[in-house]
Amino acid sequence: MAKTMAVNAGSSSLKFQLLDMPAEQVMAQGVIERIGMDDAIVTIKYGVETNQGTHLADQSADGSNVTVSQDGQMHKYENVLPIKDHQQAINFMLQKLTDLGIIADFSEITGVGHRVVAGGEWFNHSVLVTKSVLEKIDRLADYAPLHNPANAMGIRAFQKLLPDAISVAVFDTSFHQTMPEENYLYALPYEYYTRYGARKYGAHGTSHRYVAGRAAEMLGQPLADLKLITLHLGAGASITAVKDGKSLDTSMGFTPLAGVAMATRSGDVDPSLIYYIQEHEGLSNEEMLTILNKKSGLLGLSTISSDMRDLLEVSETNDHARLAVKVFVNRIVKYIGQYIAEMGGVDALVFTAGIGENSAPIRQMIIDKLAYFGVTLDATANQTRGQEIEISDQNSRVKALLVPTNEELMIARDVERFK
Amino acid sequence: MAKTMAVNAGSSSLKFQLLDMPAEQVMAQGVIERIGMDDAIVTIKYGVETNQGTHLADQSADGSNVTVSQDGQMHKYENVLPIKDHQQAINFMLQKLTDLGIIADFSEITGVGHRVVAGGEWFNHSVLVTKSVLEKIDRLADYAPLHNPANAMGIRAFQKLLPDAISVAVFDTSFHQTMPEENYLYALPYEYYTRYGARKYGAHGTSHRYVAGRAAEMLGQPLADLKLITLHLGAGASITAVKDGKSLDTSMGFTPLAGVAMATRSGDVDPSLIYYIQEHEGLSNEEMLTILNKKSGLLGLSTISSDMRDLLEVSETNDHARLAVKVFVNRIVKYIGQYIAEMGGVDALVFTAGIGENSAPIRQMIIDKLAYFGVTLDATANQTRGQEIEISDQNSRVKALLVPTNEELMIARDVERFK
Repeated sequence: MAKTMAVNAGSSSLKFQLLDMPAEQVMAQGVIERIGMDDAIVTIKYGVETNQGTHLADQSADGSNVTVSQDGQMHKYENVLPIKDHQQAINFMLQKLTDLGIIADFSEITGVGHRVVAGGEWFNHSVLVTKSVLEKIDRLADYAPLHNPANAMGIRAFQKLLPDAISVAVFDTSFHQTMPEENYLYALPYEYYTRYGARKYGAHGTSHRYVAGRAAEMLGQPLADLKLITLHLGAGASITAVKDGKSLDTSMGFTPLAGVAMATRSGDVDPSLIYYIQEHEGLSNEEMLTILNKKSGLLGLSTISSDMRDLLEVSETNDHARLAVKVFVNRIVKYIGQYIAEMGGVDALVFTAGIGENSAPIRQMIIDKLAYFGVTLDATANQTRGQEIEISDQNSRVKALLVPTNEELMIARDVERFK
Repeated sequence: MAKTMAVNAGSSSLKFQLLDMPAEQVMAQGVIERIGMDDAIVTIKYGVETNQGTHLADQSADGSNVTVSQDGQMHKYENVLPIKDHQQAINFMLQKLTDLGIIADFSEITGVGHRVVAGGEWFNHSVLVTKSVLEKIDRLADYAPLHNPANAMGIRAFQKLLPDAISVAVFDTSFHQTMPEENYLYALPYEYYTRYGARKYGAHGTSHRYVAGRAAEMLGQPLADLKLITLHLGAGASITAVKDGKSLDTSMGFTPLAGVAMATRSGDVDPSLIYYIQEHEGLSNEEMLTILNKKSGLLGLSTISSDMRDLLEVSETNDHARLAVKVFVNRIVKYIGQYIAEMGGVDALVFTAGIGENSAPIRQMIIDKLAYFGVTLDATANQTRGQEIEISDQNSRVKALLVPTNEELMIARDVERFK
């Protein structure tokens, strides 16, 4: 059996999903956190997803636990141990997948797909990782200093441990490389574009691409004939206008800071105001950037939480929470309006990611504001969480769909194309 | 006869218009430039506007010229002389208006209305200038360091020279004070709002208010029943959603830097990118802010001119010029989409200011992109420049209007209300 691993390597973490391809069946998934520490945490789930309670099935002398769901379908392995680097983390994980009987042998994994955050203008689709590709990913670190070096580290570690598996880089930005220049260029001195690549790159491309594709299948129409607005609403949130199957425009910018208000990111702000605040608060550029990325958005406005669930829970009684929710919805509605104008219409809105998949009230608030465009909600269908479903009612001129995102599957599919 | 003067005082210039009120007839208008220099320039036009050629009518020993139009209707007085400050400038101008027989006496001017750029949250309409109002205008200098101190200087100088005339402050921001909090607040830590008034104030309020009012009259409907999008497209450009006669949202922000791309201002930019450029170019915040305000927008993208006329002239053959025009139109179309979404529809688009009043090609490019919303152009009517006219065709569901702005008249009307 040919298995493919989809990998998202961070600077001190590594998320993975092992899929049986082309069957597209998830064999195992997990995460290794706190890499580089004496108390790194390894979690591996395998078997069939279930909502049932779990019980402890095995506690080993090495400190690891395995819990199993009541119906015996879902297993969860957890361990805390010293892990010095990504290579050791991956080696441990692969060994454990073997021990647990999920793979018979490392060589069963014939392809590894890696999420890479910044692809710049060099990568407009997923590519087989060559030496030159790796060098480019390194050079693009300037655009994603927290992510690209970690992504590259993950690629190198897997290449050492699985020398026979193909290695594919899947970029967050590549889907958006189809944007026309009037959308990707800022109204800045042009030389900054030629000198530094100062432009809009967008993000969440793999997710937008995946849900756009699924939406076309749900609608029974070719993606190339549709005008879609895909709403990836998670802690990071971005909105994309997908026309003729291609990204026409997207709300994130040179970095993921721009666009709508997010959990802790501000989204769009008058740059003059940022300098004004800096000056009055005595903040360096770096400190201000941290505030814009980590202390703003829902957290900044609400003053209580970056988590939409917390805010919705208290928004009846807490003015700040209600305000944060209103701003969140307001910015999304405005981006939808922008993209309807740009595309000259829209066939469907596609909701995905944490908030998009799970928050019926947020979806409702957004759709209620769009009545003018002919979107009407099916309130019952909208109660659904995390499942593909149409949430607009029968008479809605513009459809609204809920499509759980699946970046790992998209990555695995991209790997498959190179096998 | 009661006359009112509408004044726009800058740090080294003073523009004025003298109106006979309530007849709303312009008696004279002019500008004094280079105040503080030995070669200040005074220009006063009086009589009836005409497009005819002019000839020299009088050349005085003091170096002043008066030219007159062929039909003898329009006079233009020009002089170059040392002027040390605003008070001297105003005194000279008032004396000259008397000499030229436009006023018989200073006391004929019974009211002076002053444009003031920043009114913060203190002023949601025009006010009689009291000591406390003047102090507040001074204190708001932080929001408009180049403008408010000059505006206050103009007020003080007129008060000394015309102690019996009433003095009214008309704020650029006050029309936008009706925006709801979800529109005026940024998704930043809330404390910046309470501590510094960090929010959206907008600008061009007097212009948006004027053209919205005229649009309602042209449409023959109460302003309070209309959804309008007013497009003030000049060297500075801003777009406002006017619902129920009130500003619901506007594209400029804490300062006039935000929003659409302008002659030399960038409009919206990912703040991360600004820091990135600063770091790579070794620029201070102040230098970067100057680039964003003075070297960006049409000038920055085109690399050749900040003037839309220049760009349109060469856009067939010059890629950079064409790009700048495309970006300009693109951003405007997106803001229109935003505001249609926010208002749940639109009854009319209202074009004004330099580009909005005079550029048929730009109006056409914008309207052509909005066919989906039911706006269709009357290509012949669209050839009109600087006159009130409907430029949408008969079947257009959404009307498009050309309305020359008249901030001076709006200021004079506001003065009249206090007389």
